[in-house]
Amino acid sequence: MSGADGTVTRISRRGLIGLIGGTAAGVGLGAAGALAVEAAGDPSSAVPTDEQTVYSFHGDHQAGIVTPVQRHLYFATFDLTARTGRDALQSLLMDWTAAAEQLVQGRAVGKTGAVGGSPLAPPDDTGEALDLGPNGLTITFGLGPALFEPGRLGLEDRRPARLTPLPSFAFELLDPAISDGDLCIQACANDPQVAVHAIRNLTRIAFGRARIRWTQLGYGRTSSTSRSQTTPRNLLGFKDGTRNILAEETDELDRHVWSDGEGQAWFAGGTYLVTRKIQMLIESWDRARLEEQEAIIGRTKGEGAPLSGGSEYTPPDFAMHSTAGGHAIPDDSHIRLAHPDFNNGQRILRRGYNYVEGNNNLGQISAGLFFISFQRSPQQFIDIQNSLAKDRLNEYIRHIGSSLFAVPRGVRPGEYIAQDLFT
Amino acid sequence: MSGADGTVTRISRRGLIGLIGGTAAGVGLGAAGALAVEAAGDPSSAVPTDEQTVYSFHGDHQAGIVTPVQRHLYFATFDLTARTGRDALQSLLMDWTAAAEQLVQGRAVGKTGAVGGSPLAPPDDTGEALDLGPNGLTITFGLGPALFEPGRLGLEDRRPARLTPLPSFAFELLDPAISDGDLCIQACANDPQVAVHAIRNLTRIAFGRARIRWTQLGYGRTSSTSRSQTTPRNLLGFKDGTRNILAEETDELDRHVWSDGEGQAWFAGGTYLVTRKIQMLIESWDRARLEEQEAIIGRTKGEGAPLSGGSEYTPPDFAMHSTAGGHAIPDDSHIRLAHPDFNNGQRILRRGYNYVEGNNNLGQISAGLFFISFQRSPQQFIDIQNSLAKDRLNEYIRHIGSSLFAVPRGVRPGEYIAQDLFT
Repeated sequence: MSGADGTVTRISRRGLIGLIGGTAAGVGLGAAGALAVEAAGDPSSAVPTDEQTVYSFHGDHQAGIVTPVQRHLYFATFDLTARTGRDALQSLLMDWTAAAEQLVQGRAVGKTGAVGGSPLAPPDDTGEALDLGPNGLTITFGLGPALFEPGRLGLEDRRPARLTPLPSFAFELLDPAISDGDLCIQACANDPQVAVHAIRNLTRIAFGRARIRWTQLGYGRTSSTSRSQTTPRNLLGFKDGTRNILAEETDELDRHVWSDGEGQAWFAGGTYLVTRKIQMLIESWDRARLEEQEAIIGRTKGEGAPLSGGSEYTPPDFAMHSTAGGHAIPDDSHIRLAHPDFNNGQRILRRGYNYVEGNNNLGQISAGLFFISFQRSPQQFIDIQNSLAKDRLNEYIRHIGSSLFAVPRGVRPGEYIAQDLFT
Repeated sequence: MSGADGTVTRISRRGLIGLIGGTAAGVGLGAAGALAVEAAGDPSSAVPTDEQTVYSFHGDHQAGIVTPVQRHLYFATFDLTARTGRDALQSLLMDWTAAAEQLVQGRAVGKTGAVGGSPLAPPDDTGEALDLGPNGLTITFGLGPALFEPGRLGLEDRRPARLTPLPSFAFELLDPAISDGDLCIQACANDPQVAVHAIRNLTRIAFGRARIRWTQLGYGRTSSTSRSQTTPRNLLGFKDGTRNILAEETDELDRHVWSDGEGQAWFAGGTYLVTRKIQMLIESWDRARLEEQEAIIGRTKGEGAPLSGGSEYTPPDFAMHSTAGGHAIPDDSHIRLAHPDFNNGQRILRRGYNYVEGNNNLGQISAGLFFISFQRSPQQFIDIQNSLAKDRLNEYIRHIGSSLFAVPRGVRPGEYIAQDLFT
C-alpha cells in the first residue's frame, strides 16, 4: 500500500486523537477521493502502520472496491422486517452512513460510544474495537433486486434495468439460506475484529428495521486490486487474480466496473456486486497429480506462469500447441475459459477471500473461496460464468451461495448512501 | 513481542532462505528453548516483522503455551480410525513431528514440497502458504483421555492419573460433535492462512490413521501471555486476561502450569489443556445497561479497572463495600468468583480466542469465546469453573463444547512428540 496515489493515509495514534477531537486540520480530498491526513505523531512508533491506515468513506465511488484488498472480510446481508417501508429504509441508510463515517476512522458509533453516557443505559457501541486502530476499514453498501419489486416500497421506477436476479448456472447447488438479501454490507479491514465490530454495530443500528439474512467471514485475500500488492494464493494452492483489474487502470475501470447509472442518479458511479460462495473439495484436489492440477488451472503451481511459458505476468499464448498434441493451455482449463479473449473482451474486478469453517462428519474441512466481483453489468459475470461450464475445475468446486447487489455511487460529506432514491 | 527474552526471532527473507538451505550458522537455543537466528537480510525490508517471526519447535516445553499469543488460531481434534493401533499412532506422531519442524520455519512439508517432485504425483504440500513467511507459527500437540482406555492401544499404564474426562458443570449444554477427541493440535500464527495450512497438511499426513473430529478458527486473542502484550478485549467489549499468568512469571508457571509428569516421562514438563467453546448471547448483552455489564464483570468497561477503584492493574479490593450496600465488586461478579482468593489460590494460564461463525435463522450472530487454558492439574480448572456456577455472566453465555488433553513435554532435535509412550 502506498500514499503516493492519494488513496491511503496512515495516521499516528496522536494524529488519530486529533482527528477524533475534531481537529481535522490538514485534511483534504485526495485524487481518488480518499482522506489525506498528515501524520502528527512519532514516525518511529512500533505500531504496525496498517493498524493506523484510514480510507475515507467519502468519494465519487464507494471505498472497498478498488481499495487495496485488506486482509480480512466480514460480509453481511440483511432482509427488511415486514413493517419496514420506504421511510424506514431511508432512515436506516442515513443512520448507517453516519455510523460508517465514524467506524472507518476507528471511532466508536453513537453519542455515548463504547463506555456509555449513562450507567443506566446500554452503551451505543459494543466496545470490542475500543483499543484497535482503524485498520484500513472500508464499509461498502449494496441494494438487492428485491427492494425494487413493484408494490413493495414504491421504488420500482428507481430500479436500474439490469438489476434482476442472476440466472441459473451449470453445476451450482445453491442454498437459499446463504444467497440473496435486500441489502448487503461488505466490511474489509486488516484486523478481523474491526470488520466484525463494524457489522455487529451496523446490525444493532438496524434493529427493528432489518435483520441479518446471512454472513460470511473471509481471510487471505484471493486477488489484488493494486500494483502495490503481490498475488495471493487460494486454497487450491495456486496464485489467484494475476490478471485482475487494478486501481491504477482507470480506463479499464470506467469500461468494465463503474456504471453510468442506467438513468438512475443514485447508481451513476456505482457498480454491480456479485458474490458466489464456492466450496472446494480440497481433500480430493490434494490427491490430484501436479500435472492434472496445472492442466486444470492452465498455470504452473509454483510461479503461476501460463502453461504456454514465461513467468507469472507473461500473457498466455492460447494458440500454442503442446508436444503431446492439443493446446499448451488446455481447452477446458480455467484461465482459458475465464479469459477476455474467449468472453467478448469481458473483464470483472475480483475481490474474493478464502474461507474455512468447521468440517463435516467425515472429517472433511469446509473450505473454499468467497468470490466477490464488481462489474458495470451483471452480464459480464454471466458470460464468464457460462463459459466456465466447460471448466474441468467444476469437478473440485461447487457454487453453494450466490447474490447480486447494486452498489450506489459514493457520497460527499453531508450526503447519505443512495439518497437519490428518495428525492 | 521482543527478542530480549530469547523466545522469539525475526529472520529476514534472505535469512530464511539461508536457513532453508541448511545454513544454520548462528543458531542456538535461547533461554526458553527457542531458536535464535541472527537476521542476515536488509533490516529496512518493508515486510512486517511478524511475518518473519520463528518460534522453535524444540524445547523443554512445547511452544504455543507461554509463547506470546499470536493473532490467529486454528484448533483441530482427531479421532484415530478403527484400525489404528499402537504402532500406527507412534508412526503418526513421528510424521507429525517431522512436519511440524518444517512448518514452524515457514517451509513446506514433505520431500516434494508444494510444487511437486514429479508431475505424475500429487505434491506433498498443499501450497497455499508457499509465499507466506513463518508468521510465528506454533504447533502444540495433545493426547485425549480415550487414548489410554484399557484394552484399546495398550497404553493404560502410561496414563497420568489426572487425565480423566472433565465432570459436568452447571449451565453447560455440550454438543458431543464439538467436544473431546483422541488427539488435538493447536496451531497459532499471525496469519490465519498459515495456521490453516498447518492443520490441513497435518490432517493429510494422518490420512488412514486419524481423521478430524472437530475444528475451531479463532482470532483476536482474548489474553496475553507476556508482559510485552497489551490486554485484548473479548466480544463482550471488556478487556480479558488482565491477571493471566505470564511467560515472565517462571515460578508461577512451575507452580500452576508445568506438570512433574505424575510419574510419566512423556508428561514431565507437559501440562493439561482445556478447551471450552463459550457461546455469547451478544444481542442480549448489548442491550444490558452499562452499570449491569460492569457489575457482572466486576470491572469498568473502558479502563478495565476493578470496581473497587484504581486502574487496570490495580489489585481488586474484594472487601470494599459500596455506598449502595454490598461489596463494590459484587459477590456474583465474574472476577471475584474466578479470582485465586476464592479458589484456594488456583491460577490457570489462559490462551483463548474470539470466534464468529455465521448466524441463526433469527439473524443472531454466532459468536463467542473459544476458551483455552493450560494447568498443572485439571482440578484447577474444575475448581474455578465450579465457583463460576454463581457467576451472573451465565445469563449471557453458554458452554457448548469441551475437551481435555494432556500436552506432552517438549522435544529435542531428533526426538518425536510423546516418544516415551512407546519405550
